Amino acid sequence: MSAFKPKAPGSGVSREGIVSYAYFDHNATTAVDNAVLDAMLPYFQKDYGNPSSRHGPGLAARRAVNQAREQVAASVGVQPGQVIFTSGGSEANNLFIQGAAGYLKPTQIVVSSVEHPCVMRAAQALTRNSRGSWNLRQLAVDKLGRVDVADVDEAMLEHHSGLVSVMLANNETGVIQDVAGIAAKARAYGAWVHTDAVQAFGKIPVDFASLNVHALTLSGHKVHGPKGAAALIMDKRLLLKPLIYGGGHENGLRSGTENVPAIVGLGVACGLVKIRIAERTARISAMRAQLEQGLMGMGAVIFGLGASRLPNTCYFALPGIEGDTLVVRLDKAGFAVASGAACSSVNPGRSHVLEAMGVDAALTRCAVRVSLGDENSPLQVENFLGALSRIAEELTRMNTVLI
Amino acid sequence: MSAFKPKAPGSGVSREGIVSYAYFDHNATTAVDNAVLDAMLPYFQKDYGNPSSRHGPGLAARRAVNQAREQVAASVGVQPGQVIFTSGGSEANNLFIQGAAGYLKPTQIVVSSVEHPCVMRAAQALTRNSRGSWNLRQLAVDKLGRVDVADVDEAMLEHHSGLVSVMLANNETGVIQDVAGIAAKARAYGAWVHTDAVQAFGKIPVDFASLNVHALTLSGHKVHGPKGAAALIMDKRLLLKPLIYGGGHENGLRSGTENVPAIVGLGVACGLVKIRIAERTARISAMRAQLEQGLMGMGAVIFGLGASRLPNTCYFALPGIEGDTLVVRLDKAGFAVASGAACSSVNPGRSHVLEAMGVDAALTRCAVRVSLGDENSPLQVENFLGALSRIAEELTRMNTVLI
Ligand SMILES: Cc1ncc(COP(=O)(O)O)c(C=O)c1O
Ligand SMILES: Cc1ncc(COP(=O)(O)O)c(C=O)c1O
Repeated sequence: MSAFKPKAPGSGVSREGIVSYAYFDHNATTAVDNAVLDAMLPYFQKDYGNPSSRHGPGLAARRAVNQAREQVAASVGVQPGQVIFTSGGSEANNLFIQGAAGYLKPTQIVVSSVEHPCVMRAAQALTRNSRGSWNLRQLAVDKLGRVDVADVDEAMLEHHSGLVSVMLANNETGVIQDVAGIAAKARAYGAWVHTDAVQAFGKIPVDFASLNVHALTLSGHKVHGPKGAAALIMDKRLLLKPLIYGGGHENGLRSGTENVPAIVGLGVACGLVKIRIAERTARISAMRAQLEQGLMGMGAVIFGLGASRLPNTCYFALPGIEGDTLVVRLDKAGFAVASGAACSSVNPGRSHVLEAMGVDAALTRCAVRVSLGDENSPLQVENFLGALSRIAEELTRMNTVLI
Repeated sequence: MSAFKPKAPGSGVSREGIVSYAYFDHNATTAVDNAVLDAMLPYFQKDYGNPSSRHGPGLAARRAVNQAREQVAASVGVQPGQVIFTSGGSEANNLFIQGAAGYLKPTQIVVSSVEHPCVMRAAQALTRNSRGSWNLRQLAVDKLGRVDVADVDEAMLEHHSGLVSVMLANNETGVIQDVAGIAAKARAYGAWVHTDAVQAFGKIPVDFASLNVHALTLSGHKVHGPKGAAALIMDKRLLLKPLIYGGGHENGLRSGTENVPAIVGLGVACGLVKIRIAERTARISAMRAQLEQGLMGMGAVIFGLGASRLPNTCYFALPGIEGDTLVVRLDKAGFAVASGAACSSVNPGRSHVLEAMGVDAALTRCAVRVSLGDENSPLQVENFLGALSRIAEELTRMNTVLI
């Protein structure tokens, strides 16, 4: 297994002559691991066959897809037949929500109020479905961003609910939900339960059976796998309507020539998750503690602090200093961080997650997310704290002058 | 521009000690070009940012996606804003059909009877849509597999038709349809017209405006680009409902973190199409002529012969010799070819294309497709003819003994 040797990202971007750049945005996406890329490369030019072809190159590609299916299945403790490959987390979440809604009679869909847009908007689309509308019920979260498990009963009693989707960990705050507890309640009412584990997978142990759900989404590019491959893991008794019709690939649920190199890469990345997670968690938790100690010394508010969170995520605000401004200034100083919801390209507005947590609008505008990863070091964290405090001081001085 | 240097595909597959292997299945998929792979590589480990991120690595990725959009647009003569990236041809075809049907009032959808399953089954799904069903009308084809343009008028008069989708070239026969003629007629009735140009693109000139359609699908992996990237090209006045909801990427029509390396590769592959098509056509047509002369000498029936066809495709039958058997025997002899419909993994049954052309069932079972590409040579064609005639003779002898 080759060790992970990250390269400097984003070269060619002017960054005031800085020599090293620290990538602190692992919840947005990650670099492909060396072992992953090595595994992918043969499938571009050598074993490039179509897995549906019945000659040698086709069979070689089919074997590679089968092996990746086993690797993905093993990483969450399911059978290979429970893995449906998709092109990304958004597609997998949409496949579950639209696919299940395509089979079930329209009732109510219950989601947390802090879901990723690809769950939230898919659920909203069901309410506009002219074939009989679904009711959308959002589960409230507390000040720390945790879904109130008791609210699940209430939601189920208000209206018959066929579908429930609650994310395992939030992309902004890193807050982890009690999915197993929610699923137990929802199952008692006969609902199909799904969890978006895109952010949790690779950062905390994810076991399909323990979560007690019917379906789960994971994605490659958040765990040093390639963009373009993800999976919907499902209980084989579910019946879903496909999003993409055609040749009948993926058990009839997702047609289209398989993206063989990306699927192979996803398989290897899932294998690495199993190997690395324990060490990663220890190392990254320590860096996050170092980071948060420094931030609190600067008067930062840390969102979700006190809740169970992903070990790599720190979502904070320096009151009075705009998050967007910090992102740009920190980038120039050699640090990649995110402000508000980074996964939403056309919606750089207010974070609906912080809004659901009752954070006031002024503080929300100050939100910055640091999400650490394997290639970060305590020295980078130290340098980051130094840069942040300099920039914050400078911005505060400018603000004061302007007033 | 690095020249295309193909490597031996499917190594590790036992092939009776043969030293070279000839890949004659370019309509199923193609090897990634060196220039394409070179362009993709920096986006796995160096510029791996999420294009939605507003730091350096994110901006670098965004610029790469923008450049690819320009390259794809230029290759079919449209504006970059008309390009919607998808994960594959199947997704793009489904996005048009389901997306348009999601906006329009249910009327009739008209498709040719020789469409790829991802168009045919998407259209069939509309007829089962409980939100108001569409009527599906299939256009008949003649014995050579050509859509009868006059039948378009008839279809439009029978029933008000909001959608028309006719492929530019067929994946099995290579037969080219008069899409511009069909579009002119369909437009007169107010229909939205789409063409699946997945097979035509890269093999014959494809110009969006000349085709007179509202939307067109092309795909990377059929033109030495990567699997995992394709595009729906569309008239910006169309309103489509997305298949995948979420962060609002691709103008709100296709959410999900962009598959940056694959999109970059698609852009370069589209650029190569423009550069290489003229030379490619001349070289490949000559090889196909050589192949077909040999086949006719062996008593083969060539489907679609006499119709305008893609220069690389030869779909034939040696009466009495099963296509499936030939695929396996030719693979062992060092040649990758396809039988019947190779793009349909779960449906290895009878070709609906040959059925629509009125070919009898017995001959259909004998169908074999050779689809030539850049890395093939006249010597490979000569060797193929030799191997085929030996295998055919042997199989005929066995059959005779068995009777
Ligand atoms: C929680 C969560 N779900 C789903 C997604 C969607 O993944 P993708 O953008 O790869 O489709 C993301 C990331 O963007 C995410 O953070
Ligand atoms: C004519 C045609 N349309 C669409 C497709 C679908 O492309 P993909 O399998 O890459 O999704 C193919 C190839 O399989 C094809 O030949």
